[in-house]
Amino acid sequence: MASNLKKYIRTIPDFPHAGIQFRDITTLFNNSKGLRETVDQMADAMAIHNFDQVAGLEARGFMLGAALAYRLELGFTMIRKKGKLPGKTISQDYNLEYGEATLEIHDDAIESGQKVLLFDDLIATGGTAEAGINLIERLGGKVEMAAFIIDLPELGGRKKIESLGIPTYVLCEFDGL
Amino acid sequence: MASNLKKYIRTIPDFPHAGIQFRDITTLFNNSKGLRETVDQMADAMAIHNFDQVAGLEARGFMLGAALAYRLELGFTMIRKKGKLPGKTISQDYNLEYGEATLEIHDDAIESGQKVLLFDDLIATGGTAEAGINLIERLGGKVEMAAFIIDLPELGGRKKIESLGIPTYVLCEFDGL
Repeated sequence: MASNLKKYIRTIPDFPHAGIQFRDITTLFNNSKGLRETVDQMADAMAIHNFDQVAGLEARGFMLGAALAYRLELGFTMIRKKGKLPGKTISQDYNLEYGEATLEIHDDAIESGQKVLLFDDLIATGGTAEAGINLIERLGGKVEMAAFIIDLPELGGRKKIESLGIPTYVLCEFDGL
Repeated sequence: MASNLKKYIRTIPDFPHAGIQFRDITTLFNNSKGLRETVDQMADAMAIHNFDQVAGLEARGFMLGAALAYRLELGFTMIRKKGKLPGKTISQDYNLEYGEATLEIHDDAIESGQKVLLFDDLIATGGTAEAGINLIERLGGKVEMAAFIIDLPELGGRKKIESLGIPTYVLCEFDGL
């Protein structure tokens, strides 16, 4: 694990709620070396696989997801919040800390049998990633791996995704919420 | 202008409102050649400039914006909708077709004197781009250029941005709304 990236990540206390230590990747992307090392480390780790497509979760997953797809010479698929995609979609509800939310994917974004790398900036409880996996699999795609810049191991998301039979990869971990 | 990219862009009628021909870049990014050509054409055109930073507008501007920053070995700054950025921000209201919206940037994202490339996927009336330019300039940055994948010339956004003294660059144009 490439923990040297942690120095670029800022921690903001009490965002979005009191008691949450928010791990802020804007400072990582804002730094030219941070952005380059993040894309290169992730792309180098993923290059041994044979994906057909990268899928990224709105909105922070769009940045590294698209840069990674470019580096790996793959296409990039957006998984968006409800109502943002203009074409025909399928949707998946999932639970948030308070209430529910819905993700959508274009119904022609993934071809049946395609091997997909799912990407997001951070995995916490894994609820969003699981909804994204469901969308890809409902289109006939196979999520070969789920990758994240940051894991918060205490929240158990990575274990949850691996219990679905999907290998995961992360660049760094933060303890404590 | 690299109009060969137009073949990757899908048009969706009546989204988000009746009468609008929505130019859908999801099909461009979904295609590995489309993504690669878009990043490479934009990066090649921008490489003669000497930017310090790329800034992208939420959310579709995050994809090519981050990939472009990676290719140009620059940092990437997110300009987000209200309430999404965790740190201290400054904000800028702007007019939409119906009502108002607000963009924000972290107050330490741009250093005074930095030369910034502003990027979004599409320019229509230019209201969002103008709000992004205001944010960057209020932090002391200089927007050296504003670049877009798609221009809708009939809506006049490009002329508006150039009337502010900021050169623009686009990869393709679509006539008609």
